[in-house]
Amino acid sequence: MSFYKPNFTTIPFVDRMIQAGEQHLRKRGFMRVTVPRIVPASGACENVDTLFEVYMAGSALWFKIGENGSEKKKRVYFTQTGQLYLESLLGDGGPPRLYCIGPSARAETKVDTRHLTEFEMIEIEFLGSFSELLSEIESFIGCLVGSAFSVAENERRRFGFSEDLSHLEQHPSVFPKINYADAVQELGVAWGDDLSSSQEQKLIQNHGACPIFIIRYPNPESERMKKILEKDGKDKAIKFFNMVPDSEDSDYVLSADCIVPWGGECVGSAARVWKLEEFKSRLFSSLMFQRLKEKDPDAELGFAWYLDMLKAFPSRPHAGCGFGMSRIFQYLLKTPDITEVVTFPSNRERIY
Amino acid sequence: MSFYKPNFTTIPFVDRMIQAGEQHLRKRGFMRVTVPRIVPASGACENVDTLFEVYMAGSALWFKIGENGSEKKKRVYFTQTGQLYLESLLGDGGPPRLYCIGPSARAETKVDTRHLTEFEMIEIEFLGSFSELLSEIESFIGCLVGSAFSVAENERRRFGFSEDLSHLEQHPSVFPKINYADAVQELGVAWGDDLSSSQEQKLIQNHGACPIFIIRYPNPESERMKKILEKDGKDKAIKFFNMVPDSEDSDYVLSADCIVPWGGECVGSAARVWKLEEFKSRLFSSLMFQRLKEKDPDAELGFAWYLDMLKAFPSRPHAGCGFGMSRIFQYLLKTPDITEVVTFPSNRERIY
Repeated sequence: MSFYKPNFTTIPFVDRMIQAGEQHLRKRGFMRVTVPRIVPASGACENVDTLFEVYMAGSALWFKIGENGSEKKKRVYFTQTGQLYLESLLGDGGPPRLYCIGPSARAETKVDTRHLTEFEMIEIEFLGSFSELLSEIESFIGCLVGSAFSVAENERRRFGFSEDLSHLEQHPSVFPKINYADAVQELGVAWGDDLSSSQEQKLIQNHGACPIFIIRYPNPESERMKKILEKDGKDKAIKFFNMVPDSEDSDYVLSADCIVPWGGECVGSAARVWKLEEFKSRLFSSLMFQRLKEKDPDAELGFAWYLDMLKAFPSRPHAGCGFGMSRIFQYLLKTPDITEVVTFPSNRERIY
Repeated sequence: MSFYKPNFTTIPFVDRMIQAGEQHLRKRGFMRVTVPRIVPASGACENVDTLFEVYMAGSALWFKIGENGSEKKKRVYFTQTGQLYLESLLGDGGPPRLYCIGPSARAETKVDTRHLTEFEMIEIEFLGSFSELLSEIESFIGCLVGSAFSVAENERRRFGFSEDLSHLEQHPSVFPKINYADAVQELGVAWGDDLSSSQEQKLIQNHGACPIFIIRYPNPESERMKKILEKDGKDKAIKFFNMVPDSEDSDYVLSADCIVPWGGECVGSAARVWKLEEFKSRLFSSLMFQRLKEKDPDAELGFAWYLDMLKAFPSRPHAGCGFGMSRIFQYLLKTPDITEVVTFPSNRERIY
């Protein structure tokens, strides 16, 4: 049996950064919500192919819903995102700015320096626009960079920093924003394809060697994207299903990924679809939902509570994102190896 | 399909309380550690009968460990406790005070006002003695009570408080400590039996109608307890396996439960066994481990990393506990119904 030990040096570092991040969000008016981590499809809709299922005594159908003989069993999963839970609270009468922090899981078969089966995510959702969203992301990451500089020079080694923080000295308060359409042209990639992590790093090098946004991804509902998806749905740039189409060009949606040096994609974000009918239409016609149905014929059961919420507490225009904290940490600590910035890094062959 | 909505009023309340609790711990020198929530037996050893299993594509054996053909598959679970993860970091060279916050799950079949399938726990582990542990618990709960009073009177309703906080006005800074042996005598319960929640509330009424400790539970390794367990192991007062025996009377261990009005048992705590050989002996001879083996013939695989840690970084005397936050919230908000103090309360028939 191979021996592996936790990463001691991550302890003061992660503690300091999570504290700084949460303080920042609270200063900006965000309230922390405890979202569930054992969830039906509504919390497991980020990447259907990497879903961990939650069983009890060997059964996938332990939970049930409904009353008086109309009971249905409900499949549950280990959460991938708290997004819809935060979104559900932003309706009429709810608070305007919310966040959650906790684990997100992906059954990644790759055992390498880029993938973990479990990672810590901070997610925010708030009443606001797409451009306000990009500002929130810039200010959150900026706060963590500031917090890195606040560590005394003679303390840096204890926190896992290299003595030299010059890679953070050029950190911009506003990040370059590159349209997906321009990015694929610049990289010579076919429109509709997802970008690989080495392509993302190349974009970073072309645009100032600092954090960048790739914005306005293809709209999966557009004719242009649908044609591509019909031919070959794999490896395409499909993001979460409820993103608002760009009013200037409906081939695109108002979504943005933030890419950082070393860490790669550390934030996925979008303006969210908030009207009930539009939400339903995008959900039920999405490729994600189609794949979910193959796993679970009753997948729509998992969204019933959310649709009910949208009916009872009509939502308002809002936007949000998820911060993959470890990837931001890679940027701060200047390491391409995600297993170095996590205290107990889990993958398929290394689990504590 | 029955409609249920999240509890909006819990949002500002839980946000305020979790923030106060974490600030308090950091002031007391505790650092926050991100512990894994998909875990082998080492994080799933609190209550074996209520374990949720984590599967991938219908298989319980997706994770593997070992190298070069000596691979073994590893069963994993949804975490019940981060205790051993924090403990593993307290060895030689490690930091002295740690905490974690996050979900803990129990497959409780009961659908009532006392049980949830998932709840939020703050756990602490630190280098220190049993009596220091009891002080930490008193000061943590005291901090939350203070935070309740810091809510302006005209804001109380918005936070879910009743206007009248008189039940907290008599909150003591030091709690009555009742020996388990005295408690069973007082209640007319057989020695070795666990106390029911109504018996716990009766003790509270007998001792000032405020939070109390029940201390020094039976030592499962003692001859006296072993005899009882052999006859009938069910419903007995067995706590976590690695508790230090009381040096004054080895029929007991240095453990304490904190019981609060309305919420009931909200903290389980103990001085921990820290020497490798003693740990191994208590683990492998425990009833908990026996039950775990029935579920998983390779259960010891899940503890291998921890035993390796104890070898490589010899531990030091330490103690710790888990705060069931929702039960403390019940005390603060004066409600016997746990589903009222959680934003998304999950049980077998109600899952978001």
